[in-house]
Amino acid sequence: MSRKEKVKVIPLGGVNEIGKNMTVIETKNEIVIVDCGLAFPDEEMYGVDIVIPDVSYLIKNKDKVKGVVLTHGHEDHIGALPYFLKQLNVPVYSTRLTIGIIETKLKEHGILSSSTLKVVSPRDIISFDEISVEFIRNNHSIPDSCSLAIHTPAGIIIHTGDFKVDYTPINGDVMDLGRFAELSKKGILLLLADSTNVERPGSTVSEKAVGDTFMRMFSEATGRVIVATFASNVHRIQQIIDAAYKYRRKVAISGRSIENIVEVARTLGYLNGPEDIFVSIDDIEKYPKNKIVIITTGSQGEPMSALSRMSNSEHRKVEIIEGDLIIISASPIPGNEKLISKVINQLFKKGANVIYESISHIHVSGHAFQEELKLIHSITKPKFFMPVHGEYRHLKQHSNLAQKMGMNKSNVFILDLGQTLELTRDSARINGNVAAGQVLVDGLGVGDVGNIVLRDRKHLSQDGILTVVVTIDRTTGKVIAGPDIISRGFVYVRESEHLMDEAKIIVRNCLETCLENQIREWSALKSNIRDELRDYLYQKTKRKPMILPIIMEV
Amino acid sequence: MSRKEKVKVIPLGGVNEIGKNMTVIETKNEIVIVDCGLAFPDEEMYGVDIVIPDVSYLIKNKDKVKGVVLTHGHEDHIGALPYFLKQLNVPVYSTRLTIGIIETKLKEHGILSSSTLKVVSPRDIISFDEISVEFIRNNHSIPDSCSLAIHTPAGIIIHTGDFKVDYTPINGDVMDLGRFAELSKKGILLLLADSTNVERPGSTVSEKAVGDTFMRMFSEATGRVIVATFASNVHRIQQIIDAAYKYRRKVAISGRSIENIVEVARTLGYLNGPEDIFVSIDDIEKYPKNKIVIITTGSQGEPMSALSRMSNSEHRKVEIIEGDLIIISASPIPGNEKLISKVINQLFKKGANVIYESISHIHVSGHAFQEELKLIHSITKPKFFMPVHGEYRHLKQHSNLAQKMGMNKSNVFILDLGQTLELTRDSARINGNVAAGQVLVDGLGVGDVGNIVLRDRKHLSQDGILTVVVTIDRTTGKVIAGPDIISRGFVYVRESEHLMDEAKIIVRNCLETCLENQIREWSALKSNIRDELRDYLYQKTKRKPMILPIIMEV
Repeated sequence: MSRKEKVKVIPLGGVNEIGKNMTVIETKNEIVIVDCGLAFPDEEMYGVDIVIPDVSYLIKNKDKVKGVVLTHGHEDHIGALPYFLKQLNVPVYSTRLTIGIIETKLKEHGILSSSTLKVVSPRDIISFDEISVEFIRNNHSIPDSCSLAIHTPAGIIIHTGDFKVDYTPINGDVMDLGRFAELSKKGILLLLADSTNVERPGSTVSEKAVGDTFMRMFSEATGRVIVATFASNVHRIQQIIDAAYKYRRKVAISGRSIENIVEVARTLGYLNGPEDIFVSIDDIEKYPKNKIVIITTGSQGEPMSALSRMSNSEHRKVEIIEGDLIIISASPIPGNEKLISKVINQLFKKGANVIYESISHIHVSGHAFQEELKLIHSITKPKFFMPVHGEYRHLKQHSNLAQKMGMNKSNVFILDLGQTLELTRDSARINGNVAAGQVLVDGLGVGDVGNIVLRDRKHLSQDGILTVVVTIDRTTGKVIAGPDIISRGFVYVRESEHLMDEAKIIVRNCLETCLENQIREWSALKSNIRDELRDYLYQKTKRKPMILPIIMEV
Repeated sequence: MSRKEKVKVIPLGGVNEIGKNMTVIETKNEIVIVDCGLAFPDEEMYGVDIVIPDVSYLIKNKDKVKGVVLTHGHEDHIGALPYFLKQLNVPVYSTRLTIGIIETKLKEHGILSSSTLKVVSPRDIISFDEISVEFIRNNHSIPDSCSLAIHTPAGIIIHTGDFKVDYTPINGDVMDLGRFAELSKKGILLLLADSTNVERPGSTVSEKAVGDTFMRMFSEATGRVIVATFASNVHRIQQIIDAAYKYRRKVAISGRSIENIVEVARTLGYLNGPEDIFVSIDDIEKYPKNKIVIITTGSQGEPMSALSRMSNSEHRKVEIIEGDLIIISASPIPGNEKLISKVINQLFKKGANVIYESISHIHVSGHAFQEELKLIHSITKPKFFMPVHGEYRHLKQHSNLAQKMGMNKSNVFILDLGQTLELTRDSARINGNVAAGQVLVDGLGVGDVGNIVLRDRKHLSQDGILTVVVTIDRTTGKVIAGPDIISRGFVYVRESEHLMDEAKIIVRNCLETCLENQIREWSALKSNIRDELRDYLYQKTKRKPMILPIIMEV
């Protein structure tokens, strides 16, 4: 370890945003990537399916890239992996359940057989030439989650990944705080830590608390119990199975993503319970109502999810009836409140009893609150600190927290996407930046939806479109067919015939004036039509539809 | 008061929804309307400005309508009034500040001079022939808010309006609980009560608590203080002025809605403070930073609001700098979280310190929590109960609360919009329903945006549009110009030339096949083009743009 050896840390995702976590660790000859997640589109990204990181920097330096290490199996940490591996096929390292989940995903993308997936266990160390990565068990809302100690020529970098500290976790495996302490004795160069819940004082509640609530609710339930939760929350699912077992109920699973995860988790031994506790959703009618639990998706109100379909009587197998107890075991992710509320309203209207977070404690967070963050800072005593996993407000509050614990402000680095933190054994500074950003995925298109398309979609969504078509004579410039006007999303046409007739007259007059003034270029004709129509329509309706003039010549 | 006299209560808004509150009280010969509010469009109502109640039932029965009584001056209780008065010009009754706010509104709509507005005071009774309405002071997040006691031939109906119980309100006027108790002795036939916060246990915190926080924050602030809050929260604004006065700061107001309200409130004496404490936003640079407070709008992250513009360096007069203390004195209304977060991030990036609800107590709710609701149920002891102001989940929880307090389930009525609750002195039943629903306002259009337009806007927002134009010969049916294809919001055209060329070939082939098969009807041609293009594009892109074939004949 020389004083001159450098290591670069470059966030390609997960800072100044929620999701799409991806961090580059780069030494002289090597790059190792931590996580490769997706983000969900924000409300301005009309029609976009998912958002993935711009990895052009990695493609440019593909010879240096040694592999991807994944902290855990959530979409915001693994969801971009298929897209990345299609461009750069490097080995992927993670814990067993994480790899299991990825296998399903790569299979869907048709690249499983060509990919190299390597299972590691906590405390395992993956050694490349210059960098080695040690997996350290932590707690989170999915099993097999790890923090990472990244050993580099310049020193040790700890990346917490997503984590909480759960002293009574479902599987008994408390976060390996001892290993953090050991590493701390050697000196930690840089800490990267989860900032998701930095605004919340105190500590998270143990996952076990939710199990106690389930037990109480199951003991009182007289009809079916339907629990919606995050598909990947295997511990939560385990606790539902435990409660079902205790109260002699069979368990049916409904929803594609949760069926996938349950299958993987059962195969790999992450879900326990007697084999015959599971029944097919097709068979639930064979049992009395009070002998059934359905575990399902849709805790965020997603319109196509199983719970949402149940609430709309569109579920193939489950019709909600009076006496059903429905537990939505999740917190609303900001932005989803209205969708969830819609589902809750519908379920209540069908006569079910619905339990949700604002009226009961049926969810705990998987992300450390302030006191847990302080614990990690205090154990690791890093020389430098980079808050990650959060919008700027979270990173800023995390920086404040670190400073309150005695860290010098100049040792805290809030980076933007693509910014490079360059570290030596005793220094750190922001030094340049690399290409980074958002790549939008829409259907099969990766990156073909950009600002212009989004701007048009937004415009169309607000005021619709008005297409004006006219055929003119090539030689005389005279109108020989049209103008025809067709609108969509603007006004209800049958009630607006007069408006459309007036609009046609305006176009016709506009074309005549152009002809008189020898204006024959299409672009000029079109822009004249557009301007006159826009003014007329705005005056009449105070709306600004997109106007698309089309001129044909014969 | 005969046992046979009937009164009908019909919610035209405010049940099974948030906002657009409006309730009809109808006797044999009279109709009195309680509130006339708007709702904000939900995320599926693309491009819609506001939502108002369908009042066709009132128009149909216009001879019976005696007037509108308004509980307070919030948009969700008065915002539809201009639209209603344009259709049915009846007298409007409310307290002084409420009328003051309405005057501004009616002026903007050009109907102030033709409207009849009557100011009433708490304990005043407005007597019509069969119905009389008594105003009872309550507490809320706007001054001059009232509950109503509606005296009818069948008995007394209490409508709480929006309320909380504040024992230390800013203006000293505690809710007139005594009057509720007196009326209760006479017997309350029906209670309609605010369900907004029925899911929240305990009691609201007094508005005064926020003032204490302001004082503490102002005492520590070394630069400018900028407070964003709801424009109509005059008590909150008073407390900011009080803190400014104590710490010798001048107060500037920025934002159209808050400037309007402050002007009305100052004119009517609802805001106190030395005349010279107010300075124009144009003059703030004349004072040291630590002598300035700016009160502004944008606490919900509204993109065009003053705070949002400040955060983007687009505000005419205020550039955010390091040292500014920005207090967002509001809770996020569900659905606005992301917008607010964006503003907070931007403000932090500019170096300001930002205080917001999740990290400090700088807001209290204006709507009763469970214990306050229990107080009202307990004081009024109504025979029948109708929860209002809430989605179904809230109405349902409020029904549960009433039942826990001993009310018989059969005496609680959760109504849908337009349903009629028919009461006599000793009975109540749901009996029929009237026309009711949502009328969408978009620009100048009131009601002309319906399901088809919204469906099209949604479709356009997701995948854009592809217009296909072709000119064919009237006699031969042969293509003589085109096909031309123009797309918007679908793909980035420059990168998709090949796709568009292929699409043109498909259209051309499709038209030729039609011609060969003697298919000449436009509708058939169009639907063939649409089907073939849709299949082709979906196969290539997994997207489904709107396809608009246009055929011209010459």
